[in-house]
Amino acid sequence: MAIREGVFSVIISCFKRHGAVSISTPVFELKETLLGKYGEDQKLIYDLADQGGELLSLRYDLTVPFARYVAMNKIKTIKRYHIDRVYRRDQPRMTLGRYREFYQCDFDIAGEYDPMIPDAECVRIVYEILSQLDLGSFIIKVNHRNVLDGMFEACGVPPEKFRSICSSVDKLDKTEWEEVKKEMVEGKGLEEAVADKIGEYVKLSGHFELLEKLMSDMGLTAVASARAGLEDMKLLLHYCELFGVLDKVSFDLSLARGLDYYTGVIYEAILTGDATMKDGEVPAVGSVAGGGRYDGLVGMFDPKGQHVPCVGVSIGIERVFSILESRAKEAGGKGIRTVETQVMVASGQKNLLEQRMKVCTLLWNAGIKTEMLYKRNPKLLNQFQYSEREGVPLLVIVGEEETVKGGVKIRDTHTREEDFVEMAALVPELNKRLAECQHSERV
Amino acid sequence: MAIREGVFSVIISCFKRHGAVSISTPVFELKETLLGKYGEDQKLIYDLADQGGELLSLRYDLTVPFARYVAMNKIKTIKRYHIDRVYRRDQPRMTLGRYREFYQCDFDIAGEYDPMIPDAECVRIVYEILSQLDLGSFIIKVNHRNVLDGMFEACGVPPEKFRSICSSVDKLDKTEWEEVKKEMVEGKGLEEAVADKIGEYVKLSGHFELLEKLMSDMGLTAVASARAGLEDMKLLLHYCELFGVLDKVSFDLSLARGLDYYTGVIYEAILTGDATMKDGEVPAVGSVAGGGRYDGLVGMFDPKGQHVPCVGVSIGIERVFSILESRAKEAGGKGIRTVETQVMVASGQKNLLEQRMKVCTLLWNAGIKTEMLYKRNPKLLNQFQYSEREGVPLLVIVGEEETVKGGVKIRDTHTREEDFVEMAALVPELNKRLAECQHSERV
Repeated sequence: MAIREGVFSVIISCFKRHGAVSISTPVFELKETLLGKYGEDQKLIYDLADQGGELLSLRYDLTVPFARYVAMNKIKTIKRYHIDRVYRRDQPRMTLGRYREFYQCDFDIAGEYDPMIPDAECVRIVYEILSQLDLGSFIIKVNHRNVLDGMFEACGVPPEKFRSICSSVDKLDKTEWEEVKKEMVEGKGLEEAVADKIGEYVKLSGHFELLEKLMSDMGLTAVASARAGLEDMKLLLHYCELFGVLDKVSFDLSLARGLDYYTGVIYEAILTGDATMKDGEVPAVGSVAGGGRYDGLVGMFDPKGQHVPCVGVSIGIERVFSILESRAKEAGGKGIRTVETQVMVASGQKNLLEQRMKVCTLLWNAGIKTEMLYKRNPKLLNQFQYSEREGVPLLVIVGEEETVKGGVKIRDTHTREEDFVEMAALVPELNKRLAECQHSERV
Repeated sequence: MAIREGVFSVIISCFKRHGAVSISTPVFELKETLLGKYGEDQKLIYDLADQGGELLSLRYDLTVPFARYVAMNKIKTIKRYHIDRVYRRDQPRMTLGRYREFYQCDFDIAGEYDPMIPDAECVRIVYEILSQLDLGSFIIKVNHRNVLDGMFEACGVPPEKFRSICSSVDKLDKTEWEEVKKEMVEGKGLEEAVADKIGEYVKLSGHFELLEKLMSDMGLTAVASARAGLEDMKLLLHYCELFGVLDKVSFDLSLARGLDYYTGVIYEAILTGDATMKDGEVPAVGSVAGGGRYDGLVGMFDPKGQHVPCVGVSIGIERVFSILESRAKEAGGKGIRTVETQVMVASGQKNLLEQRMKVCTLLWNAGIKTEMLYKRNPKLLNQFQYSEREGVPLLVIVGEEETVKGGVKIRDTHTREEDFVEMAALVPELNKRLAECQHSERV
């Protein structure tokens, strides 16, 4: 949980730096809201039992509920983030950070704007987050649905097979081309010559030089939607350059995200290597962020079909957790402190429970994170051991002799030195020592 | 959401000050885990549809999942907090802060300890949180299941009716005694004389003087469990005194929380009046925290029936939200800022999009919360209006003339003053002004 809190904090700071507000939607949606949005993966939706009342399902992602929210509240423009859990009836795969309940972490911009400006800001946000989380080197692949569809048309794919062939291309991040081609030809009945043409395109990736190559490709530019898509990509790359992130961006024709609702730019960020990784080793988790433009989704929930264009990215936060947690484990040692206690109020003699309680009260009143063992007469050794195990830096030791002198002893867990301090000076002295501890931890 | 984040922060700080760790459990549990734990309210549990695999239900509270977690992981001692959503198939009642999906906010101490020490710390925690949230005056009612059962036995209630009569007593916070008595006698077949005896007891509340009165009550002290319960209450009140919270605590014989699993001390915190409330006005939301000791629950999930005693409190955070949100609304004015943006990068001339993007990049790199409108050529007025509406304190205005001079203008949204600043000095100058803004907001 300590690692997770750190990751959340980096991500939320980034979203706020870009002017986003936080909104929250319920964990369940009307079943009909979710139907027909997720293509083949619809079978992974959890339904609630019919116990009377509406038919409900657990949310599958945060995007569809967001679109429903925008439509219902007749919102025209919003920039929001939402970090919350979603649910899928899938086989959990812990090593990939894949669970049946997991966090998603979305940033979306809704509204009618000039082309590709919000789209480029989404790339910038992924760039900022992945850089700050220090996950090693990464690349943000970008592509465009219109370029993909134009490419399919130019290659001679029949229009009714666009989505299905797109799903096959989507597998290229995990599967060799030969196998994907086999699926296209044998599984989906595509002519081999057509598949081979696709094979030539999906090899391509780059920046402006690729753009120029495609813009002079007569077959492709004969298709109107491809031309429009390429114009968008040109703007996107230009804006990415202005936002200082172009070196991490790759226009990649093999990128084809599977979801039905994308209508424009699509993104996917991939970790390409890890500081702690040996040369040539392939990272166990590849994709750590994805997203795209979905201009039609809000309209599906508006009775009047009001159009609110949206673009957004989702950070694969569970994969980030897996990476950072396994890195923390490898780093070994005591790991990360879970308890933040600063002072243990202890005693080695009997019948001092009341004294300990009073001291605890004093320290809590002063805002100091304080614990005592819940025993009338705990053994001093147990109190020392607890402090060492949990990394509690200071102990306040209550004793008869000290009480007579009007004070207590402060013990430093690390040096094991003990000093007498008068009761009136206790809180200031502890605050002074705690400030020193914090300072030396940072150094 | 801004109010909510403030409340979460107060509560989490308190839990950490008392040495608790944060743990998280899944939103669904095996259906069988939840069965038989909630008495009559079991009908409010949401089940998932049977789509193959295990039969699952959505969690109804955080306590049963916690007990299941402790048992499954064979934990002997833990002090944890958990803030998360729970689910009930109930009629939502917005004014009471009651929804079908809502946050619970639990702190629990599990482990075999000396009597009433953790129990008293729970009272202290409720005290700290309610004081710091500044909700107006409050009282923390305490009672004990053994005292209640002893009272029923002393009054002559047949043992098989204890739980059901206890449910009736539980209604006394919202219902007049006469009506509760009617339910006992007519609805549950209790003799009227027995009900009248109960009626005498449930009027009683106080501190040590009540304790003495009950300890000299021969009818009550003839019952062994009542004697044990009174001994516990004596310790609890004593420890509450040491923790400095006794003036907010009331030993109240009418307190009888309905849940089946409580075995010892029970708590309930009530708002007794509000700073913003007229004299004699009854607050719309009464109970804002509750809890108790449940020593048997973990054992129900352990195959060997291993006993791990627990005590905990739950903060009624949705009710706290309702109160603070309606207070913020009444206070009127601009309300709470939702966007934290510090600088709007603007322009009044055409063709300066690229300049604006470069300045945004510079400011994001410096960690400044920065926005620009997503238009190629936005109207200057729109940029001013956005900044005023959202409370963005500063604008950076990009212009042709300033660009030639190697700088930009900074505009103060409040004073509307504009000053030229060279590009190299922009970030330090903004940081200086933002620090001043923050300072003047605090004053």
